[in-house]
Amino acid sequence: MNTVNDRTPSEFSWPIRVYWEDTDAGGIVFYANYLKYFERARTEWLRSLGLGQQTLRESLGAQFVVSEVTVRYHRPARLDDELRVTARLRELGRASLTLAQRAELVPRSDARPAPVPCCEAVVRIGWVDTDTLRPARLPAPILDVLKP
Amino acid sequence: MNTVNDRTPSEFSWPIRVYWEDTDAGGIVFYANYLKYFERARTEWLRSLGLGQQTLRESLGAQFVVSEVTVRYHRPARLDDELRVTARLRELGRASLTLAQRAELVPRSDARPAPVPCCEAVVRIGWVDTDTLRPARLPAPILDVLKP
Amino acid sequence: MNTVNDRTPSEFSWPIRVYWEDTDAGGIVFYANYLKYFERARTEWLRSLGLGQQTLRESLGAQFVVSEVTVRYHRPARLDDELRVTARLRELGRASLTLAQRAELVPRSDARPAPVPCCEAVVRIGWVDTDTLRPARLPAPILDVLKP
Amino acid sequence: MNTVNDRTPSEFSWPIRVYWEDTDAGGIVFYANYLKYFERARTEWLRSLGLGQQTLRESLGAQFVVSEVTVRYHRPARLDDELRVTARLRELGRASLTLAQRAELVPRSDARPAPVPCCEAVVRIGWVDTDTLRPARLPAPILDVLKP
Repeated sequence: MNTVNDRTPSEFSWPIRVYWEDTDAGGIVFYANYLKYFERARTEWLRSLGLGQQTLRESLGAQFVVSEVTVRYHRPARLDDELRVTARLRELGRASLTLAQRAELVPRSDARPAPVPCCEAVVRIGWVDTDTLRPARLPAPILDVLKP
Repeated sequence: MNTVNDRTPSEFSWPIRVYWEDTDAGGIVFYANYLKYFERARTEWLRSLGLGQQTLRESLGAQFVVSEVTVRYHRPARLDDELRVTARLRELGRASLTLAQRAELVPRSDARPAPVPCCEAVVRIGWVDTDTLRPARLPAPILDVLKP
Repeated sequence: MNTVNDRTPSEFSWPIRVYWEDTDAGGIVFYANYLKYFERARTEWLRSLGLGQQTLRESLGAQFVVSEVTVRYHRPARLDDELRVTARLRELGRASLTLAQRAELVPRSDARPAPVPCCEAVVRIGWVDTDTLRPARLPAPILDVLKP
Repeated sequence: MNTVNDRTPSEFSWPIRVYWEDTDAGGIVFYANYLKYFERARTEWLRSLGLGQQTLRESLGAQFVVSEVTVRYHRPARLDDELRVTARLRELGRASLTLAQRAELVPRSDARPAPVPCCEAVVRIGWVDTDTLRPARLPAPILDVLKP
């Protein structure tokens, strides 16, 4: 179902279906909702590495928070479309990491074999104390898992 | 901001505009989003009575939680529509209260003077401990404010 | 993806994970978001019967619209929870149908073997003309599929 | 209520309140929801210029679609916070325009007189044909209104 690495060795992907809730009166996925898709893929990527966010908060009192995001919209997705949403670690710092993410349309038939990119994002994520929301150093157990 | 009581003495109303985020590919407001509208109107109704929910949580360690809702959808609202969303207390118990709510379309011109009902709801709300989410008795300061 | 019918012969179920987008500052799933979950399960139920909604709209010029919903909230779901959301046809009329739906918490370990109900709903759905949104009779191809 | 221009002559601003629906289990506004706020402010900015989007679609068969957005998150907003969301035209091209937007926290008392920036965005918007979603030249009536 997931963790297909058919692009680069370190690219994670997660399948997402477009439902009514995601679309707007223009008949396409509302632009803010791709950020929801990207967040789901990041959460599943972390889960696949053994990093449950609820568990991290409870055990470490800290959490990931997005500090910057750039999104490019290429082609709209529509109701019932099946998307493949990816996450790939691009940079790992002491208190933050940067991911490249992509939502691409899964072809419905053999007639259109290559996935069509809908939306691309670069997402910078900081590690912050849950109570103060102040930046903190990424703890060793997380760094160890994320390091290439 | 407003507190127009033009129906019954105890009816609170709040203006809400329909934005892109609220609509779906059918061109109408997505059915779940009326529950957002009703929540906003309840929050503003409580605020108009001096009951800020964030303050209540911090001072009393308890909060309101919806336990049951019945919604009837009459007529769809669309992008750019202006709604008037109401809240009226119907029942006040020891640990819960019941509200009647309504979302109605504000006429754009004099040609259609009466508001058109889009959606009606009956909402039952319990008072619960914030940590355990278990039901608790409504505290005196809240009961005093809500009592007719 | 699934269609586990372990309760009654005609109950459809769909797995749904709770993400950040679904929760609110109370730490639990926001009450309106269960209506999103129920809609996803209905869409997948229809898809499992060969009824794609986008295809229906394009071929028949008509669509399903919710006309009434009653929701009872039993126990909150939280971040990272895994839910099983069901849909079961209760009544089939000429221009509408009624479904019973349920969101239940999937136990994380063997220690809690039985699913815990979070939320239950009864949903009445009408069949309407896409342009006018006026009620219409359910066409034979749909009736044939839905009939027990 | 709006159109306060206290920064630069051409800055539009719109008041937005943070409700339960906007927050997540971290107790703060979910990062995707700022894109909803920015969209609302853009819609109200266009409306203040006499450009209703539903009307544009019906009369011109075309609409605005976001093609790129960069968001920087500075400081989280919380439940009940009152925000001031701005929109300022930065560039006007033949088929697109670029806006600078900002969400800032309105101080609750005189003790903190200056607004606190929560989130900033640069948003690029294209003008597209509603049916094909292909880029089109901005029509003269819109250009005339937007030109400085």
